[in-house]
Amino acid sequence: MAKLVECIPNFSEGRDQAVIDALVKEAKSVSGVTLLDYSSDASHNRSVFTLVGDPDGIAEVAFRLCKLASEKIDMTKHSGEHPRMGATDVIPFVPVKDISAEECVEISKKVAERIYNELKIPSFLYEDSARRESRRNLAAVRKGQFEGMPEKLQQEEWAPDFGERKIHPTAGITAIGARMPLVAFNINLSTSDINIANAIAKTIRASSGGFKYCKAIGVMLEDRNVAQVSMNMVNYEGTPLYRVFEVVRAEAARWGVHIIGSEVIGLTPAKALVDCAEYYLKIENFDYAKQVLENHLLG
Amino acid sequence: MAKLVECIPNFSEGRDQAVIDALVKEAKSVSGVTLLDYSSDASHNRSVFTLVGDPDGIAEVAFRLCKLASEKIDMTKHSGEHPRMGATDVIPFVPVKDISAEECVEISKKVAERIYNELKIPSFLYEDSARRESRRNLAAVRKGQFEGMPEKLQQEEWAPDFGERKIHPTAGITAIGARMPLVAFNINLSTSDINIANAIAKTIRASSGGFKYCKAIGVMLEDRNVAQVSMNMVNYEGTPLYRVFEVVRAEAARWGVHIIGSEVIGLTPAKALVDCAEYYLKIENFDYAKQVLENHLLG
Repeated sequence: MAKLVECIPNFSEGRDQAVIDALVKEAKSVSGVTLLDYSSDASHNRSVFTLVGDPDGIAEVAFRLCKLASEKIDMTKHSGEHPRMGATDVIPFVPVKDISAEECVEISKKVAERIYNELKIPSFLYEDSARRESRRNLAAVRKGQFEGMPEKLQQEEWAPDFGERKIHPTAGITAIGARMPLVAFNINLSTSDINIANAIAKTIRASSGGFKYCKAIGVMLEDRNVAQVSMNMVNYEGTPLYRVFEVVRAEAARWGVHIIGSEVIGLTPAKALVDCAEYYLKIENFDYAKQVLENHLLG
Repeated sequence: MAKLVECIPNFSEGRDQAVIDALVKEAKSVSGVTLLDYSSDASHNRSVFTLVGDPDGIAEVAFRLCKLASEKIDMTKHSGEHPRMGATDVIPFVPVKDISAEECVEISKKVAERIYNELKIPSFLYEDSARRESRRNLAAVRKGQFEGMPEKLQQEEWAPDFGERKIHPTAGITAIGARMPLVAFNINLSTSDINIANAIAKTIRASSGGFKYCKAIGVMLEDRNVAQVSMNMVNYEGTPLYRVFEVVRAEAARWGVHIIGSEVIGLTPAKALVDCAEYYLKIENFDYAKQVLENHLLG
């Protein structure tokens, strides 16, 4: 079975079409790697690419894109609404097929090392690649942004994982790491009381004692007058969707509230949902890799 | 998005390795078509191939295999336990991705026409390709087998769909048609009473008033002392797995019996299970083609 890795590099350019076009061309330059999607946002002044390919190909294209971005993007002249610290701001690697999270960590380290050796752009390892807990969260790593980084790197605990304690003068510094695919999953309640959605969100999210791989807040769907528990499931194998669904159902019951529907926003790996079918249908001994037809088509 | 069709031709040879090897080689002769699996059974004297590819490629390989089988297999000398009527006994085409059942019907007709024009092997169109209801069921079409076909073809209602009223002298006649993928799905009950499994099977199968696309019988799992409702789901979009599961649950309740587990045997399309997750999680407006990551990887 062929190993497949997803890579979703974020670049600090969302306005200059010539630069974006050059990045798109480079993204298609490695055989065995497919550019699935890319989008640019002018107000954020940022572009997000989604690539998938074999481990070697994806490592190569990540490096090439980072090199090109460092040649085309000058962070000393960059402005935009989205927090950022580098021309290539962040490079996550996500396991897609027949590859472990650990192997994606290795890929991230290899790419980070090469980026420093050949481009002199330092990096922080984040998420599953983080060498200390304080670097797991991207927001914490990026705090201070490009302009604050020279000072931040002098702080005892913020030496880069690769490179010296100074940013690349125009390309800044990059966060590189492996993470599980994220599933954006929302549950709609039979109430318009946002307090109930907030109370339930609190019971299921990791930060207040809930599930380790669940982030959750209550939000109001104003057009439908419906309160919603809005979640980011950051590791659907560690915390499956059906488990939070059943806990939301149980917690809602104490308020006399039930679940009226749910939403999956954007992409999800098939397995995140097939795991739910396995649970509800009580399927015994199901072998996802072998028994799902599409897994054989992916080669 | 690339269209993908599965083809599962059955050949009346399961003993002569040289013939099987030649068929395997031919199965790999068309670019864009992958041989996913093949298996041969000596007592059945039959081989089953599983191929997947684009519509043109799959039509080409089906023709080539049928041609080779007609050159290598002499039905006047064939014996085996499995019913059969042709060197290539049956050629089903199954929609896998971005292709409708109707398009697979067109492929089946095109292949059947070419097989008669170039090889003079007549064919019956069956399943979704059948031009009359009596030819939908393969067992009915094949009744009489190779030896009885010359006489059967003289009956008013059994003229072949392609070809004259006579079989190919050594290759016989072939059933060709489109069908949905079949999911073998079994539900285990908290009882050892086979009568309960039989009674439930009767309520859900089409032949006795149940779901149109469900075939079901009761069977006994002797090693576990568990009665099972064993099903072939012949169209999981027309009759979804979760719907029969819930009806089995409800019917079992009248005997004080509950569902202790289920099994999916062999391959299933991911969508048959993702549809179940959609049902149980009450997911609103889910777009399978767009939102499932793997669908983008299949190109």
